[in-house]
Amino acid sequence: MNTDHISYDAGRLRILDQTELPERTQYAELRQWQEVVEAIAGMKVRGAPAIGITGAYGMALAAHAAAERGLSGSGFLAELDAAAETLSAARPTAVNLSWAVRKARKEAGDLAARDLPAAAIADALAALAKQIHEDDVAACRRIGDLGAALLTAGCQILTHCNTGDLATGGYGTALGIIRSAWREGKLAHVFVDETRPLLQGARLTAWELQRDGIPYTLITDSMAAHFMRLGSVSAVIVGADRIARNGDVANKIGTYGLAVLARAHGIQFIVAAPLSTFDLVTQTGAGISIEDRAAVEVTHIAGKAAAPAGAKTANPAFDITPAEYISAIVSDAGIVYPPFGETIGALLKTQPQFATTRG
Amino acid sequence: MNTDHISYDAGRLRILDQTELPERTQYAELRQWQEVVEAIAGMKVRGAPAIGITGAYGMALAAHAAAERGLSGSGFLAELDAAAETLSAARPTAVNLSWAVRKARKEAGDLAARDLPAAAIADALAALAKQIHEDDVAACRRIGDLGAALLTAGCQILTHCNTGDLATGGYGTALGIIRSAWREGKLAHVFVDETRPLLQGARLTAWELQRDGIPYTLITDSMAAHFMRLGSVSAVIVGADRIARNGDVANKIGTYGLAVLARAHGIQFIVAAPLSTFDLVTQTGAGISIEDRAAVEVTHIAGKAAAPAGAKTANPAFDITPAEYISAIVSDAGIVYPPFGETIGALLKTQPQFATTRG
Repeated sequence: MNTDHISYDAGRLRILDQTELPERTQYAELRQWQEVVEAIAGMKVRGAPAIGITGAYGMALAAHAAAERGLSGSGFLAELDAAAETLSAARPTAVNLSWAVRKARKEAGDLAARDLPAAAIADALAALAKQIHEDDVAACRRIGDLGAALLTAGCQILTHCNTGDLATGGYGTALGIIRSAWREGKLAHVFVDETRPLLQGARLTAWELQRDGIPYTLITDSMAAHFMRLGSVSAVIVGADRIARNGDVANKIGTYGLAVLARAHGIQFIVAAPLSTFDLVTQTGAGISIEDRAAVEVTHIAGKAAAPAGAKTANPAFDITPAEYISAIVSDAGIVYPPFGETIGALLKTQPQFATTRG
Repeated sequence: MNTDHISYDAGRLRILDQTELPERTQYAELRQWQEVVEAIAGMKVRGAPAIGITGAYGMALAAHAAAERGLSGSGFLAELDAAAETLSAARPTAVNLSWAVRKARKEAGDLAARDLPAAAIADALAALAKQIHEDDVAACRRIGDLGAALLTAGCQILTHCNTGDLATGGYGTALGIIRSAWREGKLAHVFVDETRPLLQGARLTAWELQRDGIPYTLITDSMAAHFMRLGSVSAVIVGADRIARNGDVANKIGTYGLAVLARAHGIQFIVAAPLSTFDLVTQTGAGISIEDRAAVEVTHIAGKAAAPAGAKTANPAFDITPAEYISAIVSDAGIVYPPFGETIGALLKTQPQFATTRG
């Protein structure tokens, strides 16, 4: 496990630039919240929990910079409002981002109401972001250990996108379950979907598994069904960007197809996510906004055109997997099973701080 | 339609190098059958019918070169045997290649038995290859027109890989149906899977559709299920590399997953192929050899690493779609429907020249 891909010290946020992996291990240092917006939108940092953490640090940066400029009171809070709004909108689908940013904004408001000076509020927001980061690592460890109990000895897992250290505070969600199963000696093999268009599976998940010495096979997304038919996959485990009240899951494009294929092959389909990914205000997947990204991500690979000039493309970054395809959702507070419409509500009732999450 | 991607004149075979598309329209001139083997194995020319045609021209090249070197009789035929064996093995899955090569070898043997001089046999093999090429174009036109009758007005087709001019003698199989449907005013839109790892959809199918002015959207393979769920796909049409006696179909990796997804969404799944793709000697898909290609096709894109050094991959170039997932198979001699175990046999009985096809 690695947690130094996001770190903060005194008005400087340092992130591992995930767009450069696996070729280069290169860090970016961000001092303005606007740079954080760019880093999130440009996917230098990605993964629902990781962008939540980064968004919280972005709020700390905004407070730090505003305090340095001598802002206080309503001017200071107005600056934080601007940062909160733009940070939350940097990527619309993952709910963790708006959840963390809103939490930071609320903390700032509460402290300002108690007449704390701007610099002290900035310090408090940095501490809050660090707490969100640490909580996420702990949540991932719980998810990993809980989820591994769903797997049988010798299991062969197929996973999609990257849900590991890089996508979270550290350890990972779906990859956290894979890590725990490996540590427990249950895991035989991992199939890693490359995850076009941005290849997070090939670039990031293969890189993490290789560093951990976990045996894996990298495949193109189109090969998943073939290996299911051959009996090589015993479970599919994926992360989530937002989970609606009824259990519908927004996750990286390609997830829905895997869920349908898993069902057709009698393979369990497991979703892993911290509580900050649940959105009880959104009733079903139909209410989740799906980010459309630039055509160039599809038409060009590694800077080279793979399609004729002027090719028309679509590039939805996420899809919706209806709850009916999901065998279990593993959260840090426990595993829920169908009917999710009931079990998610019951789970979140015990965790009131997450019950009003809204994007 | 374009048929000049494969042409032959007096001991020179000229092919459009498909590995350079869409960036460059570059032709390769081949004078030795060994160069034809390399062109097929390296996928400068690909697509089951197209490599059949190219294999037949390769045999003509072999005969031409052997005649020029003064070979005759058993020495001449031994040279053709060597060419036939190596050409057939250049790619193992598509049956059209071995079918065309064997046809040429038989023709050479028959003519040699009648004491024709080597140069005359070489000319006859060139004429045979040209005939196979022309027959394939005619077959594709029949497939296109027959298949279009299966589609309803306003249909939205999803297709995989490239099955157009470039994959055939010209016009195409699945893309032939799309072309006919477009000409008849029935076609609303085409979704083009990019088809990793070698991106034949993005590089070749999008290029052909753009030249024809047929409206299309290029998507990553992982997006197909999403657009099916949205109701944007009314039929999936694919080609085939080999069709077993029972109707199981070997085709580009990713085809099987699309078939399962089509079934789950109530979408018809149509296979289009000329009679030379049917292999009555192979009883089921289990008997079809699936080509495994080099890892570098998965780990590198456009020459750049997309995965960590040493990443372990799998790269099956094809998968098997069981007959039960297929709504209809459109051949140039008619459309067959389930139960394919009966209907394919009945269809091929009327076409004895194809009834003993063997890889």
